Amino acid sequence: MDKNNIMGKYLHHQNRPQEPTSTMSELTVEQKRELLPYLRTFITEERDTRILEVLQNRTRHLTIVLEDLYQTQNISAVMRTCECYGVQDVHIIEKENEFIIHDAISMGANKWLTLHNYQNELGNVAKCADYLHAHGYKLIATLPAENSVFVDDLPVDEKTAFFFGTELTGLSEEAVAVCDGAVKIPMYGFTESFNISNSVAILTSNRIERLHRSGIDWRLTPDEHDELYFEWLCKSIRNIDLILKRKLEEGI
Amino acid sequence: MDKNNIMGKYLHHQNRPQEPTSTMSELTVEQKRELLPYLRTFITEERDTRILEVLQNRTRHLTIVLEDLYQTQNISAVMRTCECYGVQDVHIIEKENEFIIHDAISMGANKWLTLHNYQNELGNVAKCADYLHAHGYKLIATLPAENSVFVDDLPVDEKTAFFFGTELTGLSEEAVAVCDGAVKIPMYGFTESFNISNSVAILTSNRIERLHRSGIDWRLTPDEHDELYFEWLCKSIRNIDLILKRKLEEGI
Repeated sequence: MDKNNIMGKYLHHQNRPQEPTSTMSELTVEQKRELLPYLRTFITEERDTRILEVLQNRTRHLTIVLEDLYQTQNISAVMRTCECYGVQDVHIIEKENEFIIHDAISMGANKWLTLHNYQNELGNVAKCADYLHAHGYKLIATLPAENSVFVDDLPVDEKTAFFFGTELTGLSEEAVAVCDGAVKIPMYGFTESFNISNSVAILTSNRIERLHRSGIDWRLTPDEHDELYFEWLCKSIRNIDLILKRKLEEGI
Repeated sequence: MDKNNIMGKYLHHQNRPQEPTSTMSELTVEQKRELLPYLRTFITEERDTRILEVLQNRTRHLTIVLEDLYQTQNISAVMRTCECYGVQDVHIIEKENEFIIHDAISMGANKWLTLHNYQNELGNVAKCADYLHAHGYKLIATLPAENSVFVDDLPVDEKTAFFFGTELTGLSEEAVAVCDGAVKIPMYGFTESFNISNSVAILTSNRIERLHRSGIDWRLTPDEHDELYFEWLCKSIRNIDLILKRKLEEGI
């Protein structure tokens, strides 16, 4: 099988994760918060309600780490699942394969996610692991191994980053080595693994439903909430760059 | 997007579901049962134990119905998920798209499944529905609609067939009409649907885990068990056609 992006030539839209414009990223969370009432006047009440509703269900209590996936169909299906379940952050470790999203399959889900991209360079796995540890995550490899715990037996109380490996060979030794534990999905047949996007879906579904039933505070912090609210309002407003520039020139 | 099998030209192996050879399908379940001890001598004890273990986890308490999927990646990922979870039967309703399995993605899972194929002809949806109703299934459409019940709220005690529709347009009106109810997976984001193979994975995972925790008798009947045991032994033995032919000539 071709190890490159086999769907590549069929893509109408190929997207790498987008960076926010400089104006937006330079603002402090306080400045963003102050701008919210002004920005809300540019969208319908219905849209605003929808955004706030989705924000209420956003979480950073768990995150998904993808190491070197190469099938754009899988990458895009993972984006869609994370967005559907409110998992805000996805970490992408590139190795041999460049990270490309297939818009027709992701259904634009990536627009509403925070994508952390670790480009192909020595130490990018460690860099990702350091970031996650620094942000309080327990790193869990998804491995169908003897000593992995079953997904139902892994408590949901700790912030957890789940590492998923490439389609054919799974996680690299380097990625397994940075992890603090391993988890597996129970399997009852002859087949020894799920399709990668299906295993992300099964695991995410399990964790999110258990979190929602738990008394754990899994929602965004007030700062995270308002930062994302600001970002999503900006994404929902036409000519936002111009609007923001003018407003900032006037003084908030 | 191309509505044909877009992966087609990359396939090394394209497979339609295989039919058993005539010798095997002509035998009664009693004959098959009588042949089991003989056939078991052709495989290792380890293999025999593995087959029996997988059989113990096989179920016809739920089944998956796919209507007119066209992405071979999705079809193959569904096969793999069903096999992993022990869902023995998959029903495939062809319409515009011919049913093709992508071996590299299904990982050969379809070999261990019973595939029911309804080729593109008038009334094939009704034919499938009649078969399932006659076999005691409640037919449930998977639809992200207002009045669909959430997957957690749908009891697992009844035999259930879950209908999944095509990637872009979902289930046909005809398919929705033959169903006895509808189910949906909770979604918390902006995106309005999961990738089709991901939704099969989430739903199947939910149902199987709940079934395993329940006191419901979800396993194969003794006859189903032995029929499948026979079939799997045959699939595990080289030159099985010759071996069976000789044995039957000798008399069982």
